[in-house]
Amino acid sequence: MADHNALPLVILAEKFASLPGIGMKSAQRLAYHIMSMDEESVRDFAKALIDAKNNVHSCKCCQNLTEKDICPICGDDERDASVICVVEGPKDVTAFERTREYNGVYHVLHGLLSPMDGITPDKLRIRELLARISAGSVEEVIMATNPTVEGDATAMYVAGLLKPMGIKVTRLAFGLPVGGILEYADEITLFKALENRNDM
Amino acid sequence: MADHNALPLVILAEKFASLPGIGMKSAQRLAYHIMSMDEESVRDFAKALIDAKNNVHSCKCCQNLTEKDICPICGDDERDASVICVVEGPKDVTAFERTREYNGVYHVLHGLLSPMDGITPDKLRIRELLARISAGSVEEVIMATNPTVEGDATAMYVAGLLKPMGIKVTRLAFGLPVGGILEYADEITLFKALENRNDM
Repeated sequence: MADHNALPLVILAEKFASLPGIGMKSAQRLAYHIMSMDEESVRDFAKALIDAKNNVHSCKCCQNLTEKDICPICGDDERDASVICVVEGPKDVTAFERTREYNGVYHVLHGLLSPMDGITPDKLRIRELLARISAGSVEEVIMATNPTVEGDATAMYVAGLLKPMGIKVTRLAFGLPVGGILEYADEITLFKALENRNDM
Repeated sequence: MADHNALPLVILAEKFASLPGIGMKSAQRLAYHIMSMDEESVRDFAKALIDAKNNVHSCKCCQNLTEKDICPICGDDERDASVICVVEGPKDVTAFERTREYNGVYHVLHGLLSPMDGITPDKLRIRELLARISAGSVEEVIMATNPTVEGDATAMYVAGLLKPMGIKVTRLAFGLPVGGILEYADEITLFKALENRNDM
């Protein structure tokens, strides 16, 4: 924002622009929008920021974000605690929950291995996963990280740690997305779909 | 966000989703991003919201947003106060200032007439514009609202009030955008470009 703009507005726009996926132009528009909101709504927004940061932390069991000690999924007796689905982040838990088909529990790594960016195994919640498995009663771990270089590397690394513990480790199936058009699938997806073909 | 998510996170995502141009999915991603920021940065963000809302208000003269009584543009003796450029919102002032060519002053209406949405003349800062002109010394008013139905209607309405006061009222030129390709211009723009053609 140019010099003629009020400093608090410039600062606010910069805060918005520092968020992922928000450019300087959108940030400016958001700052102006805040100005058009009533004072109470703006205070509520500020409070929501502080509340989320102060009252939400990692579940002691699965490391997903929660305001309790143990998240509702880990605390649910009807979920099958013998199957753990290992994901990169909290949003992946939301994605699986939306399917309404998975009845096991989760483990959130809070990132993927990326040594170039300084994300080494000790930066992820791998220690906590091993502790859960050492406590017994886990039969299967599903590696559900993204099919990217980092996602695959993380899945391989964690699988390598778990297999000696006598745990069944599986990986999500990769293939054509349902409703997708074969013609538009990239070569690797198509190759995976071919390789993992099933009997009819 | 689904039931298993921590309530403060759901509330924060809803706040983000209430902003223009941010859908529920982006809002969720932003809420997770806030969780990954350190506590001080989150407090700074919350403070920026409150500060902008509390310390920024309309300039007593041009109605643009400022933290002072009179904005830097109205307070600048080197600007030509006899020419007022009337715009819809503060972002339009920024757009004109970016040209570095305009040396007059502004008047921000804070909206456009839209009777269907309940935005009648008394909702805009038209009274303040008339007061500025009644105080004398204004020679030209440039109506610089967007070339839309509401923008044109607002320009016509304000021009109708100003002309009896003996003020020269002009409207921005509409035509082909510089660097634009004739073939891709819409019919109305092309018609305007033809109608407003200049001698070479």
